[in-house]
Amino acid sequence: MGELLGVAVLGAGHMGADHIRRLDQVVSGARVAAVADPDAARAKEAVSGVEGVSVHTEAEAALDAPGVGAVLIASPGPAHEEALLAAFARGLPVLCEKPMVPDSAGALRVLEAEARLGRRLAQIGFMRRYDAEYRRLKALLDDGRLGRPLMLHCTHRNVSSPPDFTSAMLIDSSVSHEIDAARWLLGQELTAVTVLRPHPSSGAPAGLLDPQFVVFETDGGALVDVEVFVNCGFGYQVRVEAVCEAGSARVGDEHGVRVTARGSAGTDVPQDYLVRFADAYDREVQDWVDATRRGRVTGPTAWDGYAASVVAEAGVRALEDGTRVPVGLAPRPALYG
Amino acid sequence: MGELLGVAVLGAGHMGADHIRRLDQVVSGARVAAVADPDAARAKEAVSGVEGVSVHTEAEAALDAPGVGAVLIASPGPAHEEALLAAFARGLPVLCEKPMVPDSAGALRVLEAEARLGRRLAQIGFMRRYDAEYRRLKALLDDGRLGRPLMLHCTHRNVSSPPDFTSAMLIDSSVSHEIDAARWLLGQELTAVTVLRPHPSSGAPAGLLDPQFVVFETDGGALVDVEVFVNCGFGYQVRVEAVCEAGSARVGDEHGVRVTARGSAGTDVPQDYLVRFADAYDREVQDWVDATRRGRVTGPTAWDGYAASVVAEAGVRALEDGTRVPVGLAPRPALYG
Amino acid sequence: MGELLGVAVLGAGHMGADHIRRLDQVVSGARVAAVADPDAARAKEAVSGVEGVSVHTEAEAALDAPGVGAVLIASPGPAHEEALLAAFARGLPVLCEKPMVPDSAGALRVLEAEARLGRRLAQIGFMRRYDAEYRRLKALLDDGRLGRPLMLHCTHRNVSSPPDFTSAMLIDSSVSHEIDAARWLLGQELTAVTVLRPHPSSGAPAGLLDPQFVVFETDGGALVDVEVFVNCGFGYQVRVEAVCEAGSARVGDEHGVRVTARGSAGTDVPQDYLVRFADAYDREVQDWVDATRRGRVTGPTAWDGYAASVVAEAGVRALEDGTRVPVGLAPRPALYG
Amino acid sequence: MGELLGVAVLGAGHMGADHIRRLDQVVSGARVAAVADPDAARAKEAVSGVEGVSVHTEAEAALDAPGVGAVLIASPGPAHEEALLAAFARGLPVLCEKPMVPDSAGALRVLEAEARLGRRLAQIGFMRRYDAEYRRLKALLDDGRLGRPLMLHCTHRNVSSPPDFTSAMLIDSSVSHEIDAARWLLGQELTAVTVLRPHPSSGAPAGLLDPQFVVFETDGGALVDVEVFVNCGFGYQVRVEAVCEAGSARVGDEHGVRVTARGSAGTDVPQDYLVRFADAYDREVQDWVDATRRGRVTGPTAWDGYAASVVAEAGVRALEDGTRVPVGLAPRPALYG
Repeated sequence: MGELLGVAVLGAGHMGADHIRRLDQVVSGARVAAVADPDAARAKEAVSGVEGVSVHTEAEAALDAPGVGAVLIASPGPAHEEALLAAFARGLPVLCEKPMVPDSAGALRVLEAEARLGRRLAQIGFMRRYDAEYRRLKALLDDGRLGRPLMLHCTHRNVSSPPDFTSAMLIDSSVSHEIDAARWLLGQELTAVTVLRPHPSSGAPAGLLDPQFVVFETDGGALVDVEVFVNCGFGYQVRVEAVCEAGSARVGDEHGVRVTARGSAGTDVPQDYLVRFADAYDREVQDWVDATRRGRVTGPTAWDGYAASVVAEAGVRALEDGTRVPVGLAPRPALYG
Repeated sequence: MGELLGVAVLGAGHMGADHIRRLDQVVSGARVAAVADPDAARAKEAVSGVEGVSVHTEAEAALDAPGVGAVLIASPGPAHEEALLAAFARGLPVLCEKPMVPDSAGALRVLEAEARLGRRLAQIGFMRRYDAEYRRLKALLDDGRLGRPLMLHCTHRNVSSPPDFTSAMLIDSSVSHEIDAARWLLGQELTAVTVLRPHPSSGAPAGLLDPQFVVFETDGGALVDVEVFVNCGFGYQVRVEAVCEAGSARVGDEHGVRVTARGSAGTDVPQDYLVRFADAYDREVQDWVDATRRGRVTGPTAWDGYAASVVAEAGVRALEDGTRVPVGLAPRPALYG
Repeated sequence: MGELLGVAVLGAGHMGADHIRRLDQVVSGARVAAVADPDAARAKEAVSGVEGVSVHTEAEAALDAPGVGAVLIASPGPAHEEALLAAFARGLPVLCEKPMVPDSAGALRVLEAEARLGRRLAQIGFMRRYDAEYRRLKALLDDGRLGRPLMLHCTHRNVSSPPDFTSAMLIDSSVSHEIDAARWLLGQELTAVTVLRPHPSSGAPAGLLDPQFVVFETDGGALVDVEVFVNCGFGYQVRVEAVCEAGSARVGDEHGVRVTARGSAGTDVPQDYLVRFADAYDREVQDWVDATRRGRVTGPTAWDGYAASVVAEAGVRALEDGTRVPVGLAPRPALYG
Repeated sequence: MGELLGVAVLGAGHMGADHIRRLDQVVSGARVAAVADPDAARAKEAVSGVEGVSVHTEAEAALDAPGVGAVLIASPGPAHEEALLAAFARGLPVLCEKPMVPDSAGALRVLEAEARLGRRLAQIGFMRRYDAEYRRLKALLDDGRLGRPLMLHCTHRNVSSPPDFTSAMLIDSSVSHEIDAARWLLGQELTAVTVLRPHPSSGAPAGLLDPQFVVFETDGGALVDVEVFVNCGFGYQVRVEAVCEAGSARVGDEHGVRVTARGSAGTDVPQDYLVRFADAYDREVQDWVDATRRGRVTGPTAWDGYAASVVAEAGVRALEDGTRVPVGLAPRPALYG
């Protein structure tokens, strides 16, 4: 299989450390070549036990380190734009955690930079596209036996929200997963969004509008509704039901060991996304490594990252204004045709 | 248990004939005493084999027939108002199929007439309240262990719509079941309604807006969303998931024999509501008979029938106008407090 | 529907009282005409609030009471033989709770008595044949789309056993339900039985061999295995999976409200058979009343009651001897052909 | 992570080729260093596109090839004994596909050879121990919350059997998986086996006793029953239900996309074990690579391979003789204590 792909990992926080472990111990065909984090101690800690890694506090220094052939961006969202542009400048393939860029203006600049480059270098970390159940659902919708999809009913629940989670983040951080999943499953763009606000749960921090109910319209005439409830208390639950002309299909029901005890029969609900989507992260990074070594990008593109930003911004406005907000996308560059 | 309750059945169509069979063969404590239908032949046919029934072409004649102690109205909706008022005038307890009265103005007249009477005589045929699964869900919501309900996600699918089914009927005929079920499950009134219209299914008759997605708001701050899809092609499917502060609860998944054959493992989907809700109809009529013999009304009241009419009318307006329409209920008479 | 069927109920214990309630309040077309129990106070208590019932301490007196047209035997098993013969002597149709007669010699005498009579009067209370799921499974096996049945895997679990429950009773009281269900589902006779004894559960009373694993062979070459576990602690669970040449079919999985809360998603397990089979009892008695009023017997016959006794006796011997025990049935009288 | 582990793969058939792909493209930390197959063309084909592999027709030549640090045996069963002994002679860690050695005498020789060596080098390819559901079941049984396991009910179904599959192979090839899984899940040895033979399915080749029903007893007093049906026609289905003193737990129900269409709601059944256990194979080889690089063996041992051979032989005798056959294991060497 030839030489291992040397990856520079930007960001050594929770997500970055997890990707370093994955590149080192799970994925075939790659190795961690460099790591960068403003907190040098954290960077060193994240690569302890991994051989042949140079440690940096500046992203660009990591990109320029010997043996680096690709970049994995796991730094905080505000740092993404600069990192992406630096990778583009060096012609380095890049896997960028979501959001590609938090604001749509920045996302557009990245998109345009890559379009000017004339070839795709960026893959965005929408890992649900790599989940086995989502992939089977996508295949089922694409094969046409259920007919045209008319509606997607989505559920997105977390046990509890992190500190400082805002009402807007239910949309631009949580629902952003459904935004990409819906675009991908349907092969359609989202064109408008309405946010409904039920009575907040007493289990949510004071002032947080949680849950919310978000309804998207698409350019193919489909509807996508999302219940997002980030302080549901009981577990991490991500489901989607596609209602088509000739049938419906649902993924995300709990499975695993079915236990009957003490008067009830059921299965455990996973407690967080790292459990539920562990395999999806592994597949995502393996696929990115495999494609990169063949000089290709096969995953979600900068256009997907840009579209997600624009839709999420419209969603936040719909939440604040209480009205239906249309989504305005820039024209799609030929590169992403 | 004393003498059998003699019931006059108004209407000998599909539903009336089914109720006659039920009173005769299934339910304990009642008998069919009279039947009325403008089509005398149809009325005779419906009671063939049943002993001691007088056959009429006029509703009032049936009410006045010997042995009649209660009325079951299964005639077409437009005939309900007159029949209800005639029953009230005679002090006869009545079980009236839904809709109580198709238009809210007529429904209000019935409500006011009963309120003037000062005692409840009418029970409205919202049979889902008698379905075993719905009752368990109601009990679960009422016992409080899941906390306050925040959202109801509802699905209502039919194989195909009858001839001449209109886009408005998806709401005032089909969703009217969810309107009552939501009011009952939550113990709240619906205060506004928005109707979203995905691309119609190619399986629906030309011009019919099918499916629709209806969102209700309640005076308790809950949201109720309903997918209604009356030409889904594959079966009759009625589900509801209640999302509460401390958990969620779902009814309506298929069950029965789980067959594994030819590469798939699953269960049959019932093909119509008479299969799915057969037991609910039996329980409804049995409970009505039992309560009536004790001089009580324990089921849905004229207020429930009135509220359903008002909400359905608002829903139809929301469908036509494409906007959020508030629901305006008259003050609730003390009789229904 | 003509005159109500007057039923004499023999035995006013738990089961008898439940049948009295059923005949009075649930079933259409019948009334309780007489009741007999050695404990007169208990008999009176069981019919309090029911009109027109004569109360007796002797079974025969109840059979001879005015208005009695049929008999329901819910007295203890040892009293069944005499009661059945008394009903036969009077030409009265009878619904007899299981076991028809506890010992096979007595069961054979009843069978021969009815055969001599030349017409069937007895129906035996194997109520699983009236359970909706079992009936759907039976219909599926009979329609042939899954091919020939090869194996039945059965589970029979109770929360806890009553006081004085013996190891033999796991077979002749509990598994007797599976004995009849297997004979009925397969349309085959059981020809041999082996009982395996795993380590007893620490949750079972000392000395009780619980659980047991029973394997039957049939004259059609099928196998029927039964896990019987009467102190499982968690609920009442009755399942059967039929494995056929072209597929398998399973009934008895829990259903109802699916609750997700506190890290788990599942459904309640019913706590006893009166909950699980409430509808089956109602259907059984209604069908018996309907058939009796038409002069027919449509349910399980005395032959079924006799066969169950013989197989259960062989099973108890197999438990005691630790060997495979063949089942020896008397020739089947033409009356049950 | 240091240098890659160089693996010699013995056997380039279906299974060998799949493992070569896995080592090359899926697993982290290893590379294919050599391959051996009597059919040199097949060996070359299996490693086409893989760099740095030497190709051999003799197993020993591959073991001696440069860069080889471990062995993966995927040759036919009869070649395993010699290959294992050759690996032991060179001190090479080895992952050996099941059966370790087809006959128990040969298995015992391997066991004794490794015991003489005084350290464990062999891991046997019982991949179910690496399936996520089985692992969760094992963890659940081990944590004790369900109490002592009393019974395992197992199902093992294949669409169709390969050509030349014999009645004995239902046990020594198919049920051998359940033999290991039961020993592992319970932590007990199997002590006796009985095989029951229902009427063969008309879907099975003439003369093949298919299905069979196998009952094992254990030294802990548990029962393990296995339905094995290798021509069931509809899919690949592997399930196990553990019945414990305080509850039961089941794995192997179908999951994935739940499709509702054409009157039925259900999920696909996988068609073969490579689909059902794809992840388990990946995990198995990754874990073996990881442990080997740390100088350890963490998976099933030669003792497990030996015990499986002995139990399978007893099972085949029980099938042929129609009686209960005790299992006689040699004393367990201290190395496997």
